[in-house]
Amino acid sequence: MEKIVSMKNQKVKQWKKLQTTKGRKEARAYLIEGTHLLKEAIKANAIIQEIVMTETFFQQSDLKIAEEVIVIVSPEILASLAQTETPQGVVAIVKIPEDTPILDYKGKYILLDQVQDPGNVGTIIRTADAAGYSGVFLGEGSVDLYNDKVLRSMQGSHFHLPVHRAALQELIPEMKSKGMPVYGTELNEAAVDYRTLPPTDTVVLVMGNEGNGVSEKILALTDQNLYIPIFGEAESLNVAVAAGILLYHFVG
Amino acid sequence: MEKIVSMKNQKVKQWKKLQTTKGRKEARAYLIEGTHLLKEAIKANAIIQEIVMTETFFQQSDLKIAEEVIVIVSPEILASLAQTETPQGVVAIVKIPEDTPILDYKGKYILLDQVQDPGNVGTIIRTADAAGYSGVFLGEGSVDLYNDKVLRSMQGSHFHLPVHRAALQELIPEMKSKGMPVYGTELNEAAVDYRTLPPTDTVVLVMGNEGNGVSEKILALTDQNLYIPIFGEAESLNVAVAAGILLYHFVG
Repeated sequence: MEKIVSMKNQKVKQWKKLQTTKGRKEARAYLIEGTHLLKEAIKANAIIQEIVMTETFFQQSDLKIAEEVIVIVSPEILASLAQTETPQGVVAIVKIPEDTPILDYKGKYILLDQVQDPGNVGTIIRTADAAGYSGVFLGEGSVDLYNDKVLRSMQGSHFHLPVHRAALQELIPEMKSKGMPVYGTELNEAAVDYRTLPPTDTVVLVMGNEGNGVSEKILALTDQNLYIPIFGEAESLNVAVAAGILLYHFVG
Repeated sequence: MEKIVSMKNQKVKQWKKLQTTKGRKEARAYLIEGTHLLKEAIKANAIIQEIVMTETFFQQSDLKIAEEVIVIVSPEILASLAQTETPQGVVAIVKIPEDTPILDYKGKYILLDQVQDPGNVGTIIRTADAAGYSGVFLGEGSVDLYNDKVLRSMQGSHFHLPVHRAALQELIPEMKSKGMPVYGTELNEAAVDYRTLPPTDTVVLVMGNEGNGVSEKILALTDQNLYIPIFGEAESLNVAVAAGILLYHFVG
């Protein structure tokens, strides 16, 4: 079991690089924080390269982990790796899996077109998991899946259902050609009221950017575009709330 | 039109106090930021005590405002009052209205029991507005309505529907005694699946704390407690998403 106390240690420097999108891309790895996510990663058989913890955490933990992957660090180092204010004393370095979507063109999917708030992206993936969807696709311009705020709001759901990156302009025609109904979302009463559509086993929903909604070029590719009626004076719904209403609507 | 350039000016000090719950309570006023909220406040006939802006904003703005309430400040002062990273150049001091709920025991309401994340509280109020609900009650232990993050995620919805503070242990029995059905929410399959209940014109929903849900003593007071089924592996839904699903469910 390795022990590191110097902030200048090369490993510490490498780990800290995983706090940026660029660093994660280069290392093909990301950081998770806290026991809940660590347990989820273990349960999902994710490839965990290293588990970094304080001496105190190691003494108190009941996690069953092979000692080879454990690195004990000073509380100062742990705090520099963690991104919450009161870290639980453990972070882990997890390998980013290969992104090879296997699509059998059945089931329920949600596609995110330039959704940029990490909390919204994480919450939508968590809701898609809860609603039993088959997968999530992040289009170009959506936030990085392994951003710490996305990870925090997903609460481990990326270990439960596949989340891929894809060019939506190519994916949507492909899904449609295989008979999957693809629905965009609009804040426009000229679109179709979602309540007129029945629950279904196979559906593809597209949610859009917080400020601008789904882009015009994507809306033009879909079978139909849906809207959620506004009965009060709010101008719109939060995108994660709108996604939740639609995800559960199609479950029936 | 007053002009202030010194950070040490007494007014600036008073305004900055409105950034805390304590300061807002004492002054019975709160800060709003940006043109969108300012326009909403004006439209809603809120009592605006002062509108603080930079010279640049004043020159470019097309807002029609009586000059008596305008105070021009340096960009440095404006930045110290604003809580976003790129302030739009205007904040306003708005009077907190008297909290005198008028309940006719009809319509749809949502009650929040110790919901603590400001983003969640704001998003729920925004969704209740969108879904055409009649009002929101914040129970003891819920975050302050005039917190800047609540205001940001509400997007002005508190100007559209009444939001009150109340002791839920007293409010719920009162609502029930007047024939309003009150539904708690639980993450427990022994509770009632929300999909078995029909849309309705009069309903009271209670949402709970992010970690602990609705407290036991509140759950014991309701007519029934509902749950949203989880079809995947997520342990729960985000409370604002769950609220969105239920709020729109009862609209039908």
